[in-house]
Amino acid sequence: MQFSAAQIALLIQGKIDGNPDAVVESFGKIEEARSGQLTFLANPKYEDYLYTTEASVVIINAAQELRQIVKSTLIRVPDAYSAFATLLAKYQEIQNQQMVGIQQPSFISDKATLGMHVFVGAFSYISDHVTIGKNVKIYPHVFLGQGVIIGDNTILYPGVRIYHGCKVGENVTIHAGTVIGGDGFGFAPQADGTFKKVPQIGNVVIEDNVEIGSNATIDRATIGSTIIHRGAKLDNLIQIAHNAEIGENTVIAAQTGVSGSTKIGKNVMMGGQAGIVGHITIADGTRINAQSGVTKSVKSPNSAISGSPAFDYTSTLRSQAIFRNLPELEKRIADLEHALRQLLAEKESIS
Amino acid sequence: MQFSAAQIALLIQGKIDGNPDAVVESFGKIEEARSGQLTFLANPKYEDYLYTTEASVVIINAAQELRQIVKSTLIRVPDAYSAFATLLAKYQEIQNQQMVGIQQPSFISDKATLGMHVFVGAFSYISDHVTIGKNVKIYPHVFLGQGVIIGDNTILYPGVRIYHGCKVGENVTIHAGTVIGGDGFGFAPQADGTFKKVPQIGNVVIEDNVEIGSNATIDRATIGSTIIHRGAKLDNLIQIAHNAEIGENTVIAAQTGVSGSTKIGKNVMMGGQAGIVGHITIADGTRINAQSGVTKSVKSPNSAISGSPAFDYTSTLRSQAIFRNLPELEKRIADLEHALRQLLAEKESIS
Amino acid sequence: MQFSAAQIALLIQGKIDGNPDAVVESFGKIEEARSGQLTFLANPKYEDYLYTTEASVVIINAAQELRQIVKSTLIRVPDAYSAFATLLAKYQEIQNQQMVGIQQPSFISDKATLGMHVFVGAFSYISDHVTIGKNVKIYPHVFLGQGVIIGDNTILYPGVRIYHGCKVGENVTIHAGTVIGGDGFGFAPQADGTFKKVPQIGNVVIEDNVEIGSNATIDRATIGSTIIHRGAKLDNLIQIAHNAEIGENTVIAAQTGVSGSTKIGKNVMMGGQAGIVGHITIADGTRINAQSGVTKSVKSPNSAISGSPAFDYTSTLRSQAIFRNLPELEKRIADLEHALRQLLAEKESIS
Repeated sequence: MQFSAAQIALLIQGKIDGNPDAVVESFGKIEEARSGQLTFLANPKYEDYLYTTEASVVIINAAQELRQIVKSTLIRVPDAYSAFATLLAKYQEIQNQQMVGIQQPSFISDKATLGMHVFVGAFSYISDHVTIGKNVKIYPHVFLGQGVIIGDNTILYPGVRIYHGCKVGENVTIHAGTVIGGDGFGFAPQADGTFKKVPQIGNVVIEDNVEIGSNATIDRATIGSTIIHRGAKLDNLIQIAHNAEIGENTVIAAQTGVSGSTKIGKNVMMGGQAGIVGHITIADGTRINAQSGVTKSVKSPNSAISGSPAFDYTSTLRSQAIFRNLPELEKRIADLEHALRQLLAEKESIS
Repeated sequence: MQFSAAQIALLIQGKIDGNPDAVVESFGKIEEARSGQLTFLANPKYEDYLYTTEASVVIINAAQELRQIVKSTLIRVPDAYSAFATLLAKYQEIQNQQMVGIQQPSFISDKATLGMHVFVGAFSYISDHVTIGKNVKIYPHVFLGQGVIIGDNTILYPGVRIYHGCKVGENVTIHAGTVIGGDGFGFAPQADGTFKKVPQIGNVVIEDNVEIGSNATIDRATIGSTIIHRGAKLDNLIQIAHNAEIGENTVIAAQTGVSGSTKIGKNVMMGGQAGIVGHITIADGTRINAQSGVTKSVKSPNSAISGSPAFDYTSTLRSQAIFRNLPELEKRIADLEHALRQLLAEKESIS
Repeated sequence: MQFSAAQIALLIQGKIDGNPDAVVESFGKIEEARSGQLTFLANPKYEDYLYTTEASVVIINAAQELRQIVKSTLIRVPDAYSAFATLLAKYQEIQNQQMVGIQQPSFISDKATLGMHVFVGAFSYISDHVTIGKNVKIYPHVFLGQGVIIGDNTILYPGVRIYHGCKVGENVTIHAGTVIGGDGFGFAPQADGTFKKVPQIGNVVIEDNVEIGSNATIDRATIGSTIIHRGAKLDNLIQIAHNAEIGENTVIAAQTGVSGSTKIGKNVMMGGQAGIVGHITIADGTRINAQSGVTKSVKSPNSAISGSPAFDYTSTLRSQAIFRNLPELEKRIADLEHALRQLLAEKESIS
């Protein structure tokens, strides 16, 4: 796809400074961009590159002053980074809209229902009674089990697997290799030391506008639903156990795990590699530091916690600072003991 | 599939109280169940729902007394939850038995051997000299490398990959995306700073009745076998390194990692996100807390450990409690130092 | 494949002691090897097995003295383990060279370019403008997005997914289920509490001689490239975030995560389950202990760090040792307080 500076200026409502017919067909960083590429300058510390870049078109802040001559065509907007991001989003939207049709070989049950403008990549597998909304993009190697429902405009990247009965909302993005609806980890101990599987007959419900990274796992509920509420963003390699619930607009960084039946509130931020035990509740707006181990419910909203086991963030920082000096702390105690022993010895010798 | 209350009562040896012809075709939680659904009441705190539920059939404890009229047909059994679970397990068994045959397109070597009543989903790949037992269910997108052996009644969910030469026992369940038999992580440092791969020519042996979650990784041995002993249950995203051994009926929660050549005993319970260093031994019945970092062998059976580095569970709890109060502890030391300085100063001024 | 002792001796430049026509067709550990197998004896503590093994051929150190009669044919070399490893590597190379051709059904764009002696397994998907070098082995179920470039002699195991625009060098090995080039985790908070996706238009560049384990995830850069430099070795289930850079010959153990824009130097060793925050720099040769949480740049090369938050390895060990004795430490403080109170009380009563 090719765009002229004039077309781009129109899309982002910018003002052209240079040749409106300059044409770009890809994107680059300002320090690496070549002729035929579009870039942007937002951070003043990169200004020098503006005078040396080969980029054909550069989006810059309206307020940017020029110290030298610029070869590239400039497009001035109030916020260059935000305009660039908007442009990219539109570009990807256009690219997605161009993906339409059913590639062969694929396996689509004649009992499945597909909406308009759907794309199904080769080697994808769509079981009986699956319902797929309009504009849905299903990359190759996707598996959708019986009765799965996929909302409009959702994108499933290669190798996503969704077990039977799970529901995915609209405008959801799930990255490659993620597994939705595998059995929850439930086994009842038997008298002879073996374990008997507890059937997992619930499902997973993913609401609208959720994004989930690559190779994550979200288990189906024992009974009822494991729920990812609207707008939540989950990074790669995350584990969400059976019957857990992730609140609206909550953001979870990579490799974090949420145990069974735990309910995470809205607008929670969780760092990477954190772990949350089962059957607790995390209040709205809680910030959980990376690698935390959360063992108790967090009841007051908007608090910050850290550590394993996790407690108040600021107190944890203080304890961690002293932890680093424990050898010195021990020495101070030994010194005190020594001084006291001397005092007592002197007293003894006097009396 | 549809079942009448009479059929269900027969399966779980229960006593009907109501219409034996009431028909159900799916399951639900008592607080959400609709007409045509089966549910159960085990926990007395949900009793109120018994009088309002729309469920057509409810399994309840024989001892349950009724305070009001119930619309649903009741089936009374000694233990409602256990009866419900049994029923679900039978239901899933029936469903599995109905999956039979080879879907197309699939890739099955003519040098592979398949047992009776096997299901192979579309896009699955079965290499030369693979042997598959009877009643095995292979979902779509499964890869079985050369010479892989799969025992009777085993279920491989979509996208399971088993590298060449690995052996999987009977009644094993492996969830989507799990990789069995990838190369162990072995590289010999060279004089120039690069690393030379140590060939990994062993395999993985998974014994009977093992269950493994989604997107887990179990590496093949350098030489010999990485072994998951019978009845072990492994959750999602678990890493088992080359030549490790996991004992009978050991249970490992999500995102835990076991390093190379470590031997975990029988009936061990490991929490999530724990890590075990290589070349150590963990005694039977050890309980390892979530997020523990185990750096030494555990020699006495049935002990509990916690922390990173891990030591005795109770002692760890005590240390962690004091850790939280380290700032106060430091203040007590400062107070002592102050008091002592004063004492010494007074002594000085007296003498 | 079958090899005689004479052929093997030629390959590893060894000296035969016994029947040069003895034939082997597989490998085994010395304590388990059967007739028709090749094994080796490197560690003197296994010498006893030399006299009982059923192996047809045993590679031993030239210096090894024999205390009894050995049935097997021996091949003497300066370093038995290294010779065995060399042999295995050659064996696997031969096996790989035999994998050639395009299996059906596969999906290969007519706009893709494939080199000589390439293998493409069934159900693999190769998009438009993909370029694949010579001798590349692509197992089944691999996905290569638009414009992906794969260098000579690279091996992609089943179910590897590489998103559009990513570049993989020569002699690279990527194990099953690993995802390269999924979107970086970038979302801009909006005034209403929702998040707006920041388009991720960069790519991933993997240089020559890199090996990556199973089910790992390496995200594409927001702009520019996430880079894995030559010779780096990454284990299973590792997360590398957008715009991160992993230095030459750096080794990272399983389940470790590197956050966005962080630059790891050369010859760094990272233990398993470690986490590194974003936007920091780790000096060449740093050793990072398993489960560390690295929150600050490491500036001096070849240092070792540990703990969460991580600091100097030796100091961490000392602090951890005292942590274990915190209850005792607290008791010493209480004793001091008690002794001091007594001293003060006595002083009072005297005056």
